Amino acid sequence: MAQGALPGFRDFYPAEFAQRAYIARVWREVARRYAFVEYDGPPLEPLDLYTKKSGDEIVGQLYNFTDKGGREVALRPEMTPTLARMVAARANALRKPVRWFSLPQLFRYERQQKGRLREHFQLNVDIIGESDVTADAELLAVAIDIMGEFGLSPADVRARVSDRRLLRALLHRLGVSEAQLPGVFAVIDKIERQPREVSAEKMAAAGMTVESREALFALMDGVTLEALRARYGDTPDIAERIADLERYYGYLDDLGVASWVQLDLSIVRGLAYYTGIVFELFDAQGEFRAICGGGRYDNLLNALGGVELPALGFGMGDVVLGELLRSRGLADAPLGEPDFWVAATENGDLRDVLLAATRLRRAGASVEYALRPQSVSKQRKAAFSAGATYFVTVGAGFRENDGVEIDEVQRVEGAGASLVDRLASMPRTLASVISLVRDS
Amino acid sequence: MAQGALPGFRDFYPAEFAQRAYIARVWREVARRYAFVEYDGPPLEPLDLYTKKSGDEIVGQLYNFTDKGGREVALRPEMTPTLARMVAARANALRKPVRWFSLPQLFRYERQQKGRLREHFQLNVDIIGESDVTADAELLAVAIDIMGEFGLSPADVRARVSDRRLLRALLHRLGVSEAQLPGVFAVIDKIERQPREVSAEKMAAAGMTVESREALFALMDGVTLEALRARYGDTPDIAERIADLERYYGYLDDLGVASWVQLDLSIVRGLAYYTGIVFELFDAQGEFRAICGGGRYDNLLNALGGVELPALGFGMGDVVLGELLRSRGLADAPLGEPDFWVAATENGDLRDVLLAATRLRRAGASVEYALRPQSVSKQRKAAFSAGATYFVTVGAGFRENDGVEIDEVQRVEGAGASLVDRLASMPRTLASVISLVRDS
Repeated sequence: MAQGALPGFRDFYPAEFAQRAYIARVWREVARRYAFVEYDGPPLEPLDLYTKKSGDEIVGQLYNFTDKGGREVALRPEMTPTLARMVAARANALRKPVRWFSLPQLFRYERQQKGRLREHFQLNVDIIGESDVTADAELLAVAIDIMGEFGLSPADVRARVSDRRLLRALLHRLGVSEAQLPGVFAVIDKIERQPREVSAEKMAAAGMTVESREALFALMDGVTLEALRARYGDTPDIAERIADLERYYGYLDDLGVASWVQLDLSIVRGLAYYTGIVFELFDAQGEFRAICGGGRYDNLLNALGGVELPALGFGMGDVVLGELLRSRGLADAPLGEPDFWVAATENGDLRDVLLAATRLRRAGASVEYALRPQSVSKQRKAAFSAGATYFVTVGAGFRENDGVEIDEVQRVEGAGASLVDRLASMPRTLASVISLVRDS
Repeated sequence: MAQGALPGFRDFYPAEFAQRAYIARVWREVARRYAFVEYDGPPLEPLDLYTKKSGDEIVGQLYNFTDKGGREVALRPEMTPTLARMVAARANALRKPVRWFSLPQLFRYERQQKGRLREHFQLNVDIIGESDVTADAELLAVAIDIMGEFGLSPADVRARVSDRRLLRALLHRLGVSEAQLPGVFAVIDKIERQPREVSAEKMAAAGMTVESREALFALMDGVTLEALRARYGDTPDIAERIADLERYYGYLDDLGVASWVQLDLSIVRGLAYYTGIVFELFDAQGEFRAICGGGRYDNLLNALGGVELPALGFGMGDVVLGELLRSRGLADAPLGEPDFWVAATENGDLRDVLLAATRLRRAGASVEYALRPQSVSKQRKAAFSAGATYFVTVGAGFRENDGVEIDEVQRVEGAGASLVDRLASMPRTLASVISLVRDS
């Protein structure tokens, strides 16, 4: 039989599941604070949902097949087409702006390489129905607040922001024609990853003059809005974009995330559908691939769902994020260790253990016990290896006197005063323990 | 383009997602109390993981295909093979008993009928490494406590329990040979759903005498352990099974769930692999299909993973359970409505709204605001339609005096004293509101 998962797929044993659940919990918690609500769609969708947006060449990267009813189907490689389909189907009924998020598992048949999986979980956050940059600021603030919630700071993670419309206007000003734009965007997309001479050659091949090439290199090199305004502010459509971005920065400042953000006009985003502000989150050291990417895609809902609604969103996968958190020692997640291990003394009865466990569980505690009679020392070892916090022993008179003994098995960091200490001034009964559990 | 999901697949708009999340939350909460830990495996597995257990005939019900690397793969139709694979791979390292649960989405290419979906979510709870009936009692208690946690009672849901070994011993006593057993089990499996004469004919065809048929009908008709002991207790292997079941009932009593449970020897469970106690949960009215089914499958880990470990588990799907909860008015789940809607007064500033929203969010509250300037009355309407609890207005002097106004937009059931009332004796500032949010 197959002894492992398929290549590129992960088994989540409890320790790995706990890390995945921790990431999902933080994602959900921050999305909740921003008043986004969760949705989901099917992991299997009609194939044409993806070919419609990305063309037939995407099929080579999909898990696609013909189902038993003769339908061409595919495991979802991304969430946006499903989102567009669902919003389009209820476009009139939905309250605008739509503020939705989802945590889908996504699938791509990638060539196997180190760290490249064929599935991952991806937080998708989208705002649909608002064209103003207030929405762009709100969206980026969600992504950045997630970083903060994980314990990361602006020294760990940078948000690089660009604006496709500003870049387009600047390129026009540099003499790049509409027909030359795709070629130049392609150069810009790779400008950080290839030698300057290679980029310069490709710009020349795309029809750019020496001067415009130099000007473009300067734009890619940590330019500020002030510098742009000083040099290009006399062009009205550039000035308009700069004013919008200034307003956007102001909102990011109010939202408490401006210190994470820098303008970086080399952020193009590979996907052809972005129309406005785009952004990516990277670790500041440049060790990992992008943590998160997104932006405004005002035409996509029309193309995919036939409704005219401005939209913007981002995707944040669990793989790069998990690597970053582990590298910073920030991925520790509780495994779900029991609060209590209940044990019988030598003259005690397993049935009393069950009774005591049930009362503790009904008070909300997590409780385990040995499923067969064992010595107290063996039960204590089991409690330790299970990671239980407290060890409660019930003896022969339990049904009459409700008496228990309780020890701390292991100290849980940040748990506050031990129940054992707080129990010191109370009768040593299960009722006392339960009253403390209820209070805590 | 395809306007909907594939047939048999569900779109989870926020309202439906909230119900699904509510079910998942209760599942996880009860599993936590019983100190089970969560795991997951890939939704796509090698096809032979399923054919190995269920034979090639299962392929007709699977979403299976050949991937781009030439591998025969299938979307998982059930979780147990993945569990067996994962446990077998680390059989020595894992603490026993293994107490694991999972909430996988499962897929079957079922013929389309009303209420039959091609995907569902299924809670899987398993105990691996304990052969005593203590484990059987613990497992059933989890399933029943979940019913209680949803607000259901023994008047709504019945747990019907049988024991494959007891039934086998009784059938032997009635003269059924080992070779006749499969045929007789098949009759018993359908005994509630087909006329008595049909069952009797099939029993005769399987080689049973008139007397043994009558005795078997009597066994299927609400028999008690006491009656069994009185009639068959002189047969040692029957007496042994009855003693085990009596101990099992005692444990169920200690675990607080005995009142939900009844012996029902007609519960066979379709799957061939169960070896001991088996059970199903049904709604007491008999309106729906089984809510949950499970039992002991001591040989399966050996067959699937080559390790010798006793095991037991159950599966509980979200579809029938959801229908039952909705029919009882118990499916209401909060949609994630915002705690606060922050608005600007006529002379207020959107940027002050963002500042106030950020402070509230950092205190843990869920906050929405209008992404573009609107009249106060329009903002109030938006707050109402978003389901916000409180409406906070910031005016012109906000940055100097921190002053806010706060109204209740809608009363949330069970929310306790309104912030508005509690704020009465405090300065009307955002700092006061935040101190109340932090306290609550």
